[in-house]
Amino acid sequence: MSAERYAVGIDFGTESGRAVLVSCADGREIGTASFAYRNGVIDDRLPAPHDAVALEHDWALQDPEDYVRTFQEAVPAVLAETGVDPADVIGVGIDFTSCTMLPTLADGTPLCLLDELRAEPHAWVKLWKHHAAQTEADRINEVAAARGEPWLERYGGRISSEWFFSKALQILDEAPEIYARADRLLEAADWVVWQLTGVEVRNSCTAGYKAIWSKRDGFPDDAFFAALDPRFEHVVDEKMSRTITPIGSRAGGLSEQAAEWTGLVPGTAVAVANVDAHVSAPAVAVTEPGTMVIIMGTSNCHILLGDRAATVEGMCGVVEDGVVPGLFGFEAGQSAVGDIFAWFVDRFATAGHDALEREAARLRPGESGLLALDWWNGNRSVLVNADLRGLLVGMTLATEPHEIYRALLEATAFGTRVIVEAFVSQGVAVDAIVACGGLPERNRLLMQIYADVTGREIAVAASRQAPALGSALFGAVAAGASAGGYDSIVEASLRMVAPSAETYTPSADAHTVYDALYTEYVRLHDLFGRDADGPMQALKRIRARA
Amino acid sequence: MSAERYAVGIDFGTESGRAVLVSCADGREIGTASFAYRNGVIDDRLPAPHDAVALEHDWALQDPEDYVRTFQEAVPAVLAETGVDPADVIGVGIDFTSCTMLPTLADGTPLCLLDELRAEPHAWVKLWKHHAAQTEADRINEVAAARGEPWLERYGGRISSEWFFSKALQILDEAPEIYARADRLLEAADWVVWQLTGVEVRNSCTAGYKAIWSKRDGFPDDAFFAALDPRFEHVVDEKMSRTITPIGSRAGGLSEQAAEWTGLVPGTAVAVANVDAHVSAPAVAVTEPGTMVIIMGTSNCHILLGDRAATVEGMCGVVEDGVVPGLFGFEAGQSAVGDIFAWFVDRFATAGHDALEREAARLRPGESGLLALDWWNGNRSVLVNADLRGLLVGMTLATEPHEIYRALLEATAFGTRVIVEAFVSQGVAVDAIVACGGLPERNRLLMQIYADVTGREIAVAASRQAPALGSALFGAVAAGASAGGYDSIVEASLRMVAPSAETYTPSADAHTVYDALYTEYVRLHDLFGRDADGPMQALKRIRARA
Repeated sequence: MSAERYAVGIDFGTESGRAVLVSCADGREIGTASFAYRNGVIDDRLPAPHDAVALEHDWALQDPEDYVRTFQEAVPAVLAETGVDPADVIGVGIDFTSCTMLPTLADGTPLCLLDELRAEPHAWVKLWKHHAAQTEADRINEVAAARGEPWLERYGGRISSEWFFSKALQILDEAPEIYARADRLLEAADWVVWQLTGVEVRNSCTAGYKAIWSKRDGFPDDAFFAALDPRFEHVVDEKMSRTITPIGSRAGGLSEQAAEWTGLVPGTAVAVANVDAHVSAPAVAVTEPGTMVIIMGTSNCHILLGDRAATVEGMCGVVEDGVVPGLFGFEAGQSAVGDIFAWFVDRFATAGHDALEREAARLRPGESGLLALDWWNGNRSVLVNADLRGLLVGMTLATEPHEIYRALLEATAFGTRVIVEAFVSQGVAVDAIVACGGLPERNRLLMQIYADVTGREIAVAASRQAPALGSALFGAVAAGASAGGYDSIVEASLRMVAPSAETYTPSADAHTVYDALYTEYVRLHDLFGRDADGPMQALKRIRARA
Repeated sequence: MSAERYAVGIDFGTESGRAVLVSCADGREIGTASFAYRNGVIDDRLPAPHDAVALEHDWALQDPEDYVRTFQEAVPAVLAETGVDPADVIGVGIDFTSCTMLPTLADGTPLCLLDELRAEPHAWVKLWKHHAAQTEADRINEVAAARGEPWLERYGGRISSEWFFSKALQILDEAPEIYARADRLLEAADWVVWQLTGVEVRNSCTAGYKAIWSKRDGFPDDAFFAALDPRFEHVVDEKMSRTITPIGSRAGGLSEQAAEWTGLVPGTAVAVANVDAHVSAPAVAVTEPGTMVIIMGTSNCHILLGDRAATVEGMCGVVEDGVVPGLFGFEAGQSAVGDIFAWFVDRFATAGHDALEREAARLRPGESGLLALDWWNGNRSVLVNADLRGLLVGMTLATEPHEIYRALLEATAFGTRVIVEAFVSQGVAVDAIVACGGLPERNRLLMQIYADVTGREIAVAASRQAPALGSALFGAVAAGASAGGYDSIVEASLRMVAPSAETYTPSADAHTVYDALYTEYVRLHDLFGRDADGPMQALKRIRARA
């Protein structure tokens, strides 16, 4: 046993799981290994031999055995690759997509692993992007609004079809026998920690952001659930738990079985689970108020800390202890970002991303005369309206593809500025920005535009795998200082996160032009986004009839 | 000399002139020949040896010798090709782009043919799309509005930089010595008739639509011209003429010299000149109120007859005797149509027009959820605002190129419907539509969409060269019935125009969906088009500063 200590972070993504092994001393990423889920995203039909069962539109399931396989494949692989002695690995942390949830027996056995329920879609894991519970989400929002539920404002006034109770209620609505059979309903994040430790421990992050829980008020009243459906009245006590453990805690020690799967030592500290976006904040050195983290990829997720609660229009949620213990973690988001650029490049451009970026970078702000609303996949924050759609204005017969490409980049930056200003207007400071995720290192023009549009410095995180690193940080904290780790996530972040790779500084000239364009963006934003019977809603209605 | 009589129509286009020889009995097109102007559109530098003279942005000139060459080349060619005896050709008509104008000496010699003025851009022909007289147009509109000029409402409230007095005033502003040297300022349409006949005869069509003349009120008062510039006070009496000859008249007989150029017989009847769009109406059998002619190509031009004057929002003009003697001819337009489709296909589609049309034709109205404003080149009618720009709304991550293509076709149809409804609302009937020009036979989907959107039958004209055929009709009328022609354009049209090639009938179901989409189009139209400080204007301002 050498003096060096390590932690393992495991990031459960949409298509694969990834394990990263980092040094506890300085956060160096020693090795990484990933496992592509054998059954991936199940959105067409169930896996064989039940592939006669077709799924309806908007469904997205997963196979819980793929999560166990990630433990069995990725962790041993990263140990073998690095040659690190398992005895030197002091902690394990995990993060997960969310809300990804499943029904299980009292012992944690997923219902979909029972022979008699294997052909039943509702017995499987509902992935975050399972969108078939919109009816239930609508009912939840309606009933909550009618009852004046006090928790609504913590979620910007609406909860999503992706969230926990929407999905749970869909099981009850469509498969009451599955609902009855489920002893437990829980986040996959907590389920995999249960598999590692043998203990069911529910984390404050998913509970707060996806299951309407708060440290001060707990879950909504039973009367609220009863108003949704009498059979739903006791869902929390019957199938969930009122004991929520703050992130940054130790969930337990690695079980004998999990030690066998992973090659790690039994009893190794396992951290309470986390969500991929939220766990990225300490991984990019953000553990204090004032700096916004933007996880930029197909979509944008914005994470911000505050020392008090605030009601911010259209945010996804504010959760005490949701990101860093002792602080309020705010979340907001843009439902399409990289997805919009890919849509344009794949369908409308003969040149690739790189050529378009090169040409677009030569344009001055405002030069194209174009402006877009970035709502290709609806608006998550601050309008919280999935029915909104994309808009592009200003085309002439001379408009070129690289001009539209740049207008799309700018539109997502304006969308982020709307979110930034919504926070600032409610007294939640946004003094600087740290960007992580797949986009920042691939698209330099995009980063400069974000700096110029927001008028703020944007640092690009050093790590290319912030979620897994963040999980490793929480693993080191679960182990504690006495074992060679840390006693707080703040300290772990301070020691284990490398300085930013690159910083983008706003140009004063560009910012001035973008101020003028932003005024127009906001005008269009309000014109199309705040009218409940606007042209986009009408087009959707006409389309539905067509 | 056989019993059959013929007429020649000559259409002077932007890049070439075209002569068509038709039978006076039934309008059969016996032969056609064209001449590509040697100096084409002069928009970069003057022709050699004066090619050191560079033209400013927005200039567009032509060489009057190219018009004479068209007589010398195209007419003999069509005679040779058809073997028709020149003695059997009883009449010649011409039509021209407009306003295309030039300064000449008293004998008709273009100033640009004088050695000492050949290097002077203002001595050349200003082509219709010469857009460098915007300052002058603005001044004219401002002074006219301030003085409450009664003629403004005949032109939808604004006159264009393309028109006669804008161009004439630009000469005075920028080259007063050229202005002083010009004994005559006239339309190229009238200049070529002068070259054919030796007589200066000014036609009612260009005078009415482009030079603010009306049969009842003549030209604006000298005081108005004086208010523009004291040197401009007597422009009409000094350099133009108050004698305006109605279209449908005989301008004169072919001169010896013109007979030599063309191979026709001296004395052959020559009709008063016409404009390409307006001359198309009788060529597609429209000589009565109630049927709108749409000349569809890169842009749309709408011609409609009425038995009384009416003030219609944003129309280009209403002129008594402007299209058919004895009736009021209304003109409106859309500044980009085919140009928008070409813009999209050339820059944003890997598939060609045909594949896009095929796929787009499979969509149901409203199915794409898209809607566009067709203002890629501004809005000519009814908003009369060149600063307006294109808009596209409704995109999702699943939006495909053929859906956008169809939305662009539909947008131009909605634009036409706005024009149709503007006429109908003022009591000018539009019961049916006849389409001609390049687009109708190339794009069947477009024609069906126009029928479905307007809820009106659309007949496609039989002739592929309506302007030249229309000119031949006027040639036959100039000759008169006694010579084997006709005594009125109505009769010539009745006898010489073949029935429509094809008729598109509106589908009631599609029309219902398009009614709903049109409501949204009008909402966007008013939102973006009627606010003098709307987002499009702001984008233009920001762009100008960038």
